[in-house]
Amino acid sequence: MERLAVQTTKHKQIVDITDLVNEHLRSAKKKEGLCHLCILHTTAALTTADLDQGTDLDMLDAFQGMIPKLKYRHPHNPSHVGDHIMSSLIGPSVLLPFEKGKLILGTWQRIVLVELDGLRDRGVVLSLIPS
Amino acid sequence: MERLAVQTTKHKQIVDITDLVNEHLRSAKKKEGLCHLCILHTTAALTTADLDQGTDLDMLDAFQGMIPKLKYRHPHNPSHVGDHIMSSLIGPSVLLPFEKGKLILGTWQRIVLVELDGLRDRGVVLSLIPS
Amino acid sequence: MERLAVQTTKHKQIVDITDLVNEHLRSAKKKEGLCHLCILHTTAALTTADLDQGTDLDMLDAFQGMIPKLKYRHPHNPSHVGDHIMSSLIGPSVLLPFEKGKLILGTWQRIVLVELDGLRDRGVVLSLIPS
Repeated sequence: MERLAVQTTKHKQIVDITDLVNEHLRSAKKKEGLCHLCILHTTAALTTADLDQGTDLDMLDAFQGMIPKLKYRHPHNPSHVGDHIMSSLIGPSVLLPFEKGKLILGTWQRIVLVELDGLRDRGVVLSLIPS
Repeated sequence: MERLAVQTTKHKQIVDITDLVNEHLRSAKKKEGLCHLCILHTTAALTTADLDQGTDLDMLDAFQGMIPKLKYRHPHNPSHVGDHIMSSLIGPSVLLPFEKGKLILGTWQRIVLVELDGLRDRGVVLSLIPS
Repeated sequence: MERLAVQTTKHKQIVDITDLVNEHLRSAKKKEGLCHLCILHTTAALTTADLDQGTDLDMLDAFQGMIPKLKYRHPHNPSHVGDHIMSSLIGPSVLLPFEKGKLILGTWQRIVLVELDGLRDRGVVLSLIPS
């Protein structure tokens, strides 16, 4: 179990962490199995995505537009509750196969950290599972 | 592999099951690894969430408001199909790291069972994975 | 680690892959543990679902209706970006317990491949984890 640190640089941001994860896999003893990544926050999430030009901004716009405009109860800043809700919906973790010290991903598939309330220092726990 | 029973008490409800899971981890032989939770239903889901006061109700309102108002085909009660759809979208399982017999979670992060068609007895399968 | 091939036959489609997965589990050496499935694409996703008559089409309609109608930047065909976004939101993988060479699922629960931009040959990586 290792902790990765990811510094986001914008208020809303899709951060491609594929290379960061592959770097850790390259130096790991286990060469094959499943790689688990889990984010320890409630306004950020992990998933995989296509990052063709502009698609990161499209995703952020869509995620924001998806939240119904309702009278929310969340304290201090009710309009900010959408960030918590999208984070729960996207989910806090991904589990992906790797072999020969490298993630197995589709041609266009990248691992992304979805920052919904940055900029912040985000913590991600990486665990390797034999399979 | 163990089965946890969770009784929901409302028709729509966010149930914090973090303490229930930590209780099982405390008495488990494995002290470190990944904890997998999987719900065996199609109108309930598992994820992590911020549970600041009122946020549970905000989430339920948002989940319901997110489902487009369309002419659905689902038999018996078509308006109920949104519960199935949100359950598929949130997802049936979470996988989270633990150490020293306790979940590793962010400061505000809780494991929640999202009840979309209660009140019911819900079954959750807990499995521990070495990592 | 094994690769399953799934050929989708429609542009938008919910494909029930439960029997395909159970077939692999029946002939696997590991009889108990967790079964991980990961799709290697950015316009398809995996989850569990209720498949009562017509519910597959309801899901597809809801997923499409959920994407806000905005001016997107995705190259070539911006309207197609919703397929990428729903694929990231539903998620690329599922992890489910199995015992006696068979998935543990709820009565109505099926594993589904959500095809958002078919028809295509889709690749799914299956890994078994001891627990």
